[in-house]
Amino acid sequence: VALLHALLDAGYHNLVLCHLNHALRGEASDADAEFVHALAKKHQLASEIQRVNLPEICRSSGESMELAARNARHHFFAQCAEKHGLDHVLLAHHANDQAETILFNLLRGSAGLKGMSFSQVHQIQRNQLTFLRPFLKVSREAIDLYIENHAIDFREDASNAAPIATRNRIRNEVMPLLNEIMGRDVAPAMARAEHISQLHEKALKSSISELHLIDPQGRIFLPKLKELSPTLQSIVLHDYLQKAGISNISQSLIEKCLGLLQHPTPSKINLPGNRFFRRKEKRLFIS
Amino acid sequence: VALLHALLDAGYHNLVLCHLNHALRGEASDADAEFVHALAKKHQLASEIQRVNLPEICRSSGESMELAARNARHHFFAQCAEKHGLDHVLLAHHANDQAETILFNLLRGSAGLKGMSFSQVHQIQRNQLTFLRPFLKVSREAIDLYIENHAIDFREDASNAAPIATRNRIRNEVMPLLNEIMGRDVAPAMARAEHISQLHEKALKSSISELHLIDPQGRIFLPKLKELSPTLQSIVLHDYLQKAGISNISQSLIEKCLGLLQHPTPSKINLPGNRFFRRKEKRLFIS
Repeated sequence: VALLHALLDAGYHNLVLCHLNHALRGEASDADAEFVHALAKKHQLASEIQRVNLPEICRSSGESMELAARNARHHFFAQCAEKHGLDHVLLAHHANDQAETILFNLLRGSAGLKGMSFSQVHQIQRNQLTFLRPFLKVSREAIDLYIENHAIDFREDASNAAPIATRNRIRNEVMPLLNEIMGRDVAPAMARAEHISQLHEKALKSSISELHLIDPQGRIFLPKLKELSPTLQSIVLHDYLQKAGISNISQSLIEKCLGLLQHPTPSKINLPGNRFFRRKEKRLFIS
Repeated sequence: VALLHALLDAGYHNLVLCHLNHALRGEASDADAEFVHALAKKHQLASEIQRVNLPEICRSSGESMELAARNARHHFFAQCAEKHGLDHVLLAHHANDQAETILFNLLRGSAGLKGMSFSQVHQIQRNQLTFLRPFLKVSREAIDLYIENHAIDFREDASNAAPIATRNRIRNEVMPLLNEIMGRDVAPAMARAEHISQLHEKALKSSISELHLIDPQGRIFLPKLKELSPTLQSIVLHDYLQKAGISNISQSLIEKCLGLLQHPTPSKINLPGNRFFRRKEKRLFIS
């Protein structure tokens, strides 16, 4: 609701309010949908309201609640976008959501620090949609103040009660405990750390591509790779294998592959799925 | 104690047991020191036991307890190393200590993910010491099992009761809560994420140095910098300013400095401390 008002204040009026009723809270979910409908009417905007039976989808598809909810949302947004000829989806995730996501991903063991992106392009069926999160650096506290100062009528988002128990416990138990221990809202520090981490990841990818290691046939040019530091060689090989669809790349596999740089034999390494990483005519490639 | 036994098992016998009594727990601290002395005697090893009055040092120097404890330890290790002609310090930090450190640094807003290093060289006065943490990937649980299986007599480390209240609350309240919510020990996942993040940081630094952007006079060669992506340009400038001792480098300062690449004027940017970032003869430098 705050995002809608901020957008209207900023002069955006070609907006469609999209609400997907996950049907997880019974009557409260229905009341949310009614609220969105009335809100759109009040501001003379179009609205799209759909209902999915998420528990049913999970039962029949075997997907996790999290994945099923995500797929349902993407599918819904793509439908709305197509119907209204729009290609931007604005989401109201804020800095505290971001901190929870960063912590959750860290606990799951994702590589490095990873939160939500401010801007992200998704190809959903035949639609290319840009997801934007204008509030990603805005704290929940600032949003509450904005709502209060503008005397805006709102409802708690039904997704806050989504059955993603782990996420909810991080929100309701872990984040308050961390704030109390550190004596301040830890979300901004976490968001800054994530931002720098993502920037560095992007820079690393960009700087590796500046090294022009890959020949026109998509093979690694060995003499150039040999000039790099062992750390950088490991990253290049890891990226190369990952892009070729090799999963669960262990450090010991990388070390075996690095062996192809130094030793005359062997000239190939076994990869999962009956594939090989080979050295031939000063090139490294997968066959 | 477990580390000592593991080292003896592995055939290392030229060991000195070093124990710094932080004098923070009164009699318990003294009993720790006696335990170390007896342990060394039992295994026919030399021992070095010293006492520092940490609260007193903090009062007189104004340092934080954490910094004062660190300086006192480093000073003590340097003394021991010099006396015994040794240059490696083996520390028993384990995977759960590492997870706490990673989380603590994240909450403090350090850049990216940062834990303790497996191996680190410290220049302490005139001594160059290598700090090693052989147990950094070993869980506390595995260490407890090792102690139990070998029926080894031990004492709880006095540092576990160090007055670093925040660290202790992370250890005693946050980590158990995270483990409970995720349904497993989260330390290994966090350590893996940190390891990859550090590897990528190292690779980024290494790949930037491969680009040979700095001329023999230590200035940035502008035509080469211009060829890079904006992200990479930002990182290069950030690193350059940081190495020159500029602190608190904001994104807006970086953007101003990036302006020197595109626009003919101005040719200098104000930096903190009456210094300037200048463009002259296709070079960027600080004066």
